[in-house]
Amino acid sequence: MGYFDKRYHPPGTSPGTLAPSVRPPATPLRIRLIDYTDREFLERDDISPDSCVPFLDSETVTWIHLQGEAQPDVLRRMGEIFRIHPLALEDVINSGQRPKADLYPGQVFVVLSHPSQTEAGLRMEQVSLLCGRNLVISFHNGPSDPFEPVRKRLREHIGRIRGRGADYLLYALMDITVDHGFPVLEWFGTQLESLEEELIENPTQASLRRLHELRRDTLLLRRSLWPHREVLGTLMRAEDWGITEDSQVYFRDCHDHAVQILELLETYRDMTTVMLDLYLSSTSNRLNEIMRVLTVFASIFIPLTFITSLYGMNFQNPGSPWAMPELHWYYGYPMILGVIVAVAGGLLFYFRRKGWF
Amino acid sequence: MGYFDKRYHPPGTSPGTLAPSVRPPATPLRIRLIDYTDREFLERDDISPDSCVPFLDSETVTWIHLQGEAQPDVLRRMGEIFRIHPLALEDVINSGQRPKADLYPGQVFVVLSHPSQTEAGLRMEQVSLLCGRNLVISFHNGPSDPFEPVRKRLREHIGRIRGRGADYLLYALMDITVDHGFPVLEWFGTQLESLEEELIENPTQASLRRLHELRRDTLLLRRSLWPHREVLGTLMRAEDWGITEDSQVYFRDCHDHAVQILELLETYRDMTTVMLDLYLSSTSNRLNEIMRVLTVFASIFIPLTFITSLYGMNFQNPGSPWAMPELHWYYGYPMILGVIVAVAGGLLFYFRRKGWF
Amino acid sequence: MGYFDKRYHPPGTSPGTLAPSVRPPATPLRIRLIDYTDREFLERDDISPDSCVPFLDSETVTWIHLQGEAQPDVLRRMGEIFRIHPLALEDVINSGQRPKADLYPGQVFVVLSHPSQTEAGLRMEQVSLLCGRNLVISFHNGPSDPFEPVRKRLREHIGRIRGRGADYLLYALMDITVDHGFPVLEWFGTQLESLEEELIENPTQASLRRLHELRRDTLLLRRSLWPHREVLGTLMRAEDWGITEDSQVYFRDCHDHAVQILELLETYRDMTTVMLDLYLSSTSNRLNEIMRVLTVFASIFIPLTFITSLYGMNFQNPGSPWAMPELHWYYGYPMILGVIVAVAGGLLFYFRRKGWF
Amino acid sequence: MGYFDKRYHPPGTSPGTLAPSVRPPATPLRIRLIDYTDREFLERDDISPDSCVPFLDSETVTWIHLQGEAQPDVLRRMGEIFRIHPLALEDVINSGQRPKADLYPGQVFVVLSHPSQTEAGLRMEQVSLLCGRNLVISFHNGPSDPFEPVRKRLREHIGRIRGRGADYLLYALMDITVDHGFPVLEWFGTQLESLEEELIENPTQASLRRLHELRRDTLLLRRSLWPHREVLGTLMRAEDWGITEDSQVYFRDCHDHAVQILELLETYRDMTTVMLDLYLSSTSNRLNEIMRVLTVFASIFIPLTFITSLYGMNFQNPGSPWAMPELHWYYGYPMILGVIVAVAGGLLFYFRRKGWF
Amino acid sequence: MGYFDKRYHPPGTSPGTLAPSVRPPATPLRIRLIDYTDREFLERDDISPDSCVPFLDSETVTWIHLQGEAQPDVLRRMGEIFRIHPLALEDVINSGQRPKADLYPGQVFVVLSHPSQTEAGLRMEQVSLLCGRNLVISFHNGPSDPFEPVRKRLREHIGRIRGRGADYLLYALMDITVDHGFPVLEWFGTQLESLEEELIENPTQASLRRLHELRRDTLLLRRSLWPHREVLGTLMRAEDWGITEDSQVYFRDCHDHAVQILELLETYRDMTTVMLDLYLSSTSNRLNEIMRVLTVFASIFIPLTFITSLYGMNFQNPGSPWAMPELHWYYGYPMILGVIVAVAGGLLFYFRRKGWF
Repeated sequence: MGYFDKRYHPPGTSPGTLAPSVRPPATPLRIRLIDYTDREFLERDDISPDSCVPFLDSETVTWIHLQGEAQPDVLRRMGEIFRIHPLALEDVINSGQRPKADLYPGQVFVVLSHPSQTEAGLRMEQVSLLCGRNLVISFHNGPSDPFEPVRKRLREHIGRIRGRGADYLLYALMDITVDHGFPVLEWFGTQLESLEEELIENPTQASLRRLHELRRDTLLLRRSLWPHREVLGTLMRAEDWGITEDSQVYFRDCHDHAVQILELLETYRDMTTVMLDLYLSSTSNRLNEIMRVLTVFASIFIPLTFITSLYGMNFQNPGSPWAMPELHWYYGYPMILGVIVAVAGGLLFYFRRKGWF
Repeated sequence: MGYFDKRYHPPGTSPGTLAPSVRPPATPLRIRLIDYTDREFLERDDISPDSCVPFLDSETVTWIHLQGEAQPDVLRRMGEIFRIHPLALEDVINSGQRPKADLYPGQVFVVLSHPSQTEAGLRMEQVSLLCGRNLVISFHNGPSDPFEPVRKRLREHIGRIRGRGADYLLYALMDITVDHGFPVLEWFGTQLESLEEELIENPTQASLRRLHELRRDTLLLRRSLWPHREVLGTLMRAEDWGITEDSQVYFRDCHDHAVQILELLETYRDMTTVMLDLYLSSTSNRLNEIMRVLTVFASIFIPLTFITSLYGMNFQNPGSPWAMPELHWYYGYPMILGVIVAVAGGLLFYFRRKGWF
Repeated sequence: MGYFDKRYHPPGTSPGTLAPSVRPPATPLRIRLIDYTDREFLERDDISPDSCVPFLDSETVTWIHLQGEAQPDVLRRMGEIFRIHPLALEDVINSGQRPKADLYPGQVFVVLSHPSQTEAGLRMEQVSLLCGRNLVISFHNGPSDPFEPVRKRLREHIGRIRGRGADYLLYALMDITVDHGFPVLEWFGTQLESLEEELIENPTQASLRRLHELRRDTLLLRRSLWPHREVLGTLMRAEDWGITEDSQVYFRDCHDHAVQILELLETYRDMTTVMLDLYLSSTSNRLNEIMRVLTVFASIFIPLTFITSLYGMNFQNPGSPWAMPELHWYYGYPMILGVIVAVAGGLLFYFRRKGWF
Repeated sequence: MGYFDKRYHPPGTSPGTLAPSVRPPATPLRIRLIDYTDREFLERDDISPDSCVPFLDSETVTWIHLQGEAQPDVLRRMGEIFRIHPLALEDVINSGQRPKADLYPGQVFVVLSHPSQTEAGLRMEQVSLLCGRNLVISFHNGPSDPFEPVRKRLREHIGRIRGRGADYLLYALMDITVDHGFPVLEWFGTQLESLEEELIENPTQASLRRLHELRRDTLLLRRSLWPHREVLGTLMRAEDWGITEDSQVYFRDCHDHAVQILELLETYRDMTTVMLDLYLSSTSNRLNEIMRVLTVFASIFIPLTFITSLYGMNFQNPGSPWAMPELHWYYGYPMILGVIVAVAGGLLFYFRRKGWF
Repeated sequence: MGYFDKRYHPPGTSPGTLAPSVRPPATPLRIRLIDYTDREFLERDDISPDSCVPFLDSETVTWIHLQGEAQPDVLRRMGEIFRIHPLALEDVINSGQRPKADLYPGQVFVVLSHPSQTEAGLRMEQVSLLCGRNLVISFHNGPSDPFEPVRKRLREHIGRIRGRGADYLLYALMDITVDHGFPVLEWFGTQLESLEEELIENPTQASLRRLHELRRDTLLLRRSLWPHREVLGTLMRAEDWGITEDSQVYFRDCHDHAVQILELLETYRDMTTVMLDLYLSSTSNRLNEIMRVLTVFASIFIPLTFITSLYGMNFQNPGSPWAMPELHWYYGYPMILGVIVAVAGGLLFYFRRKGWF
């Protein structure tokens, strides 16, 4: 994740413009369609936008999923067929949107962030969902399809999903997107725990860098996930847009998950600050220890060396009784050794009393 | 308590799935039932879910308590008997939930955090409570039962609890859970006081580690207890869910306790920051002191040693009047001693005026 | 003030329990009664709860004040006579409550914090007030009675207090309690000002400790006084509980005082942080100065001593022209002195240009 | 400005007490009266309270300004004549109030802070305004009158002020008071810019002190001006108190100014923190540089001096081949010089590679 | 951008005063007019205020753009022709306003900040927009016209703009102004990324200065852009002021952009703090490393030099057996060398075990 991940049109571009992507699409677009009721089930893969037309006004629930980077012409055609607002289409193509829920007449348009922890680091993809009458269109701009578990539940008739409407399908897709936060946060939690141990046992420059990366990723993750709470709050109150009372309890559950993820993130963020404080105080503590050692060594031996250096002077005027007479005393050397021992002992005692070693 | 304590199903799992616990249950499940009115009292221990059926529609208040880690099949059976929403059952099994109050038709479902301070450190368990008409079902996922005092009050007819309905029993169970925060915070307070004294008297690396642990635990505790305020606020307004006006005053009292606990926690959190500041400034203060000692010692003796070292040079060209003539002066040595004393005195005076010792 | 000052019953105790105090009461309880209208005035001191019964349903305003630590049996009797809710009585005995205003049917129950600055440090006492029809009961758990000024105003008919009802008396008691914050904050302000001067002129380890104490006390004081704002807000809207429109303007005034005290506290808190920053930067500044002195001294004399030490070597092979020939040069010594002066001068110039002295 | 600038009566004083000021009034009180309609204009200076009586019920707009420290007896008389609530009068005399807008029956009472930047530092004075029907009474407790520009506009019939009512006059007086924040903030901005340059170019202990003063003044200014926003918000909604719809747009404009001033202050506050961080990191950076110089010097010359000192030893047993034979080698001295150069070079290379110089 | 960028009149100036600018206008004013319906289009450049009169009450949408610094007389004339409120005109001339939306009768007046990143640094210009019936008047006080893309869309009939009313034109102008934040933030993001790399690889004093500038600019940018959110919120609810329901979805989109820009800014701000922490901890880490090297060098060689210095003393009383007999021992020198090696080895072992190298 970079610091600025948003695609945007130059200021002043007409709203709803679907500019062709500058970069060639990393992943070719693939359209999958599932059409179901409680008893019927139909699945189509790799189809064109126009083959979706027959499902337009059926009473069965239709789910169209576009995996990969959406091309302007495909999007434009989808927009015409399903009467999608140009601003919504623009949000699909300008990925890096802030998660949001826009209520258009008869349609709910939702943008979510889909986090994942890969080996190359934290990765954030955009999930766009459009829910109309008996219709859900989903867009995911990454290489791999995160919605396979839902498709399996539909295909194998697991749980209640087949017997419910498009709003429940919308919930199921949002739920899977939001819940992808849990493995990411679990990974963060493990990292923090091992880092904390490292900081207490043996902090290095590498621990500092790791801590910095965790702090940065926590910030970026928080920015991407923060609006989820608001998005789900909007949907919980969107009764006029086809969210049945029955489904609301599920949206509330999903809202709870979004909130718990954010609170975990906040705690992790505070935790990294607490760990940095630990690092800094340990560092300054160790500096003190180092300086104490240096000071004790230097302050003891520097005066001693002065004394010995004093008697290394070559004052050798034999005619003068003042020319370092100590050098010629009978007990001169032992006396000086005594002075040295006394000075060293005194200083050791002084530093000891100060508690420096 | 770890940084990530939540159990969760893989993203995309059908909501309401009760997956068997991966780990074998640490504590075998034990179901206890109490059935009472003002005049009648009946207690059953270690029963099966099915033996609860007769109490289902009675006019007496029935309290079923499940102690230990709930097994999927037992939960599923309980859910069928008492018509519990699958999402509520999922929350019971996926412990580590954020505390919350969910209002289902005719039922209130509450999740609370139950903190305790053990020798192994701060411990957090999950209490789940379900309150319907004349019915309270409680779940506690730890090894020991915290609700014994309520059972005693019921059994021995202490206070007003026997004469009141299921909502008052719900209050009593929530109150005991929330109030467990007080002994934990008292322990924190004592720790902080002794640590503060230590930091003022004689701070060590160990004090720093202890401070760090207190800061971390404060953060984790805060995360777990923060939503209690919201939960109790929801219940205070849940008149349509069977919370009588009479009981509301008790819920308000419990809400006040939750708020007081949170405010204490906030103060403790600020206090640990204040203590860290104290630690850091003391440390940097002591560094200054150490460096002052080193500087005074080194700066005085290094020039003196230079002087003595100067006259230790062996320039001994007897034919040159420039070859260290001082060495041959009559008063050469005392003069140098005088220079040394003067330099040392000057430097001492200089450092004294700077206030360095 | 300690970090945890609350008294509480063990979790699970029946609500409204009035457990006998573990410690013997520090101050014996004393009950004082004043009964007044605009024209009548009656004062009783040191009476028993039962002698209050005659005043129960009179049309005169009755003020009963309990000074000292309330005993369970006295409280229980008061509760019976005046129909006080058991939870309110429990809050009186479990001192260390968070300030709050509870509205019971026909009664307002208020808990406030009463701060005072004594020689032993900041002290916090609990004032509990109960206001019913023509009745105010006040509790103060400290040794000295703070309400004497109100009693004097009643006795000597000063101001409007005698002509107004129980709600105005409630205001008068709350006002005096809240206003006790002003002298405490004035004391804090004076302390901060003198400490700031000290930190600028001559910061010591003692200043640091004093700053730490001020920060801690600010935090504790803030925790105790913060809810006052909310309490007064509740009372300003409590028209159904007998607060006349006429008195509301006085409660608003008292609310303004509470808010001003809190804003002062916030400023003081920010100020202590600003002062700590000043302290830390001064300290690190002084460390720089110390290290500059050491570095200049050491870096100049260490090379010089190396040079002199070089010529103190005893290479004395008279047969070798390589054995320190400089020692035998005619101008050897002055030359070396020149080298020494040049090196010292060069280094001085270098450090000067770096701006180190 | 001090940290605690409020005057207050001892707790328990009867509300509305106008205690005589302890200090003799610094500035004698001066009452000025202006009475105007669109066509008439009358000005009186230095009058007594009683000469205001004739203007009491006139249909002309009357503006009475009291400059200087208000005396209790004058205030009491004003209160009687214009029926001012005693709590409002108390707020006039107890200067240092928190800015506020109190709505009394038929009267609006406003307290504002009037900041000014003098040579002696930041100064804060209190402006109190009372607005009734066709009447504005203003109080300013400083030595110089800030309202002269308004008087000039009235006198010379500039703009629309003469044609409008008392509410517009109230606005005009509040606007001038609030707008005095702009020159003060401009002064702060200039200070911050010059200080920032100083901190980047050449930070000294004096810059630190200046930064500290700016931080403290920002805090004190913020405390005084913060409630202005709320005060103006109250007045914008005070239609029942005679603020005409026509004037509301002007109050809104004044509110915008108050908000802009507060946002500037917030930015300045953040800016001072950013500057302190700059200072601290520069300081710790310079410490690193100093220590690098010391370490390079010391670590190179200390081993060299050891080597030379080694050969300064006087082992001179001519009979022993072990008595420092190097001293007698033919190439002993150049060899040692070579060793010295090699050691110095090696260390230089080592420190160079570490990037220390 | 400076810290105080606002122009203002001296406090007390009559509201709506249009004082002549003190500085001569940097850019001469240029008035451009576009008048259009779906089928008609008319463009006039460099016209006088009076030539706008004919368009006053037409049914076509008229857009008048004033580029450059507005002169009081031109503004006054515009105000007369289009009945603009004097306070709005004052806000146009006193640039540096806080962004705001003022609703005047029949007119919406909007002030926005228009950021741009130039080579000389961050630049902030003021865009003022007035929208009435079929009329938009725009003011931009910078040298270059940012609205050319809108003019092109109108001229070339791109998108829906020609078929919609003045409210959509207002949106288009606001949208372009708000969206100019994206390139600025993209520039910030790139800067932060390169700076982060620099801080990890090789932090210098220059990185610190760059970081400081980014922090300052983030703060200033935030102050200018923060109120955009509020402005757009006001317009989304301004149905009575001619914002059609159809256009509201576009204002909502623009609001989303404003919010996303602010959240990016907040993240950048947090990020700079995280980077400063990284810088500071790296610095203190490197200081530790430096001191460790110094301490190891000094603490090993200082005792050794003491030993050698000891035997450099000139005690040479041949008659005394105490005059440094070691010097005369047969194995004296090797023994001392052994002592030296042993001391050095011991110290190396000690420091090694401490993990200092």
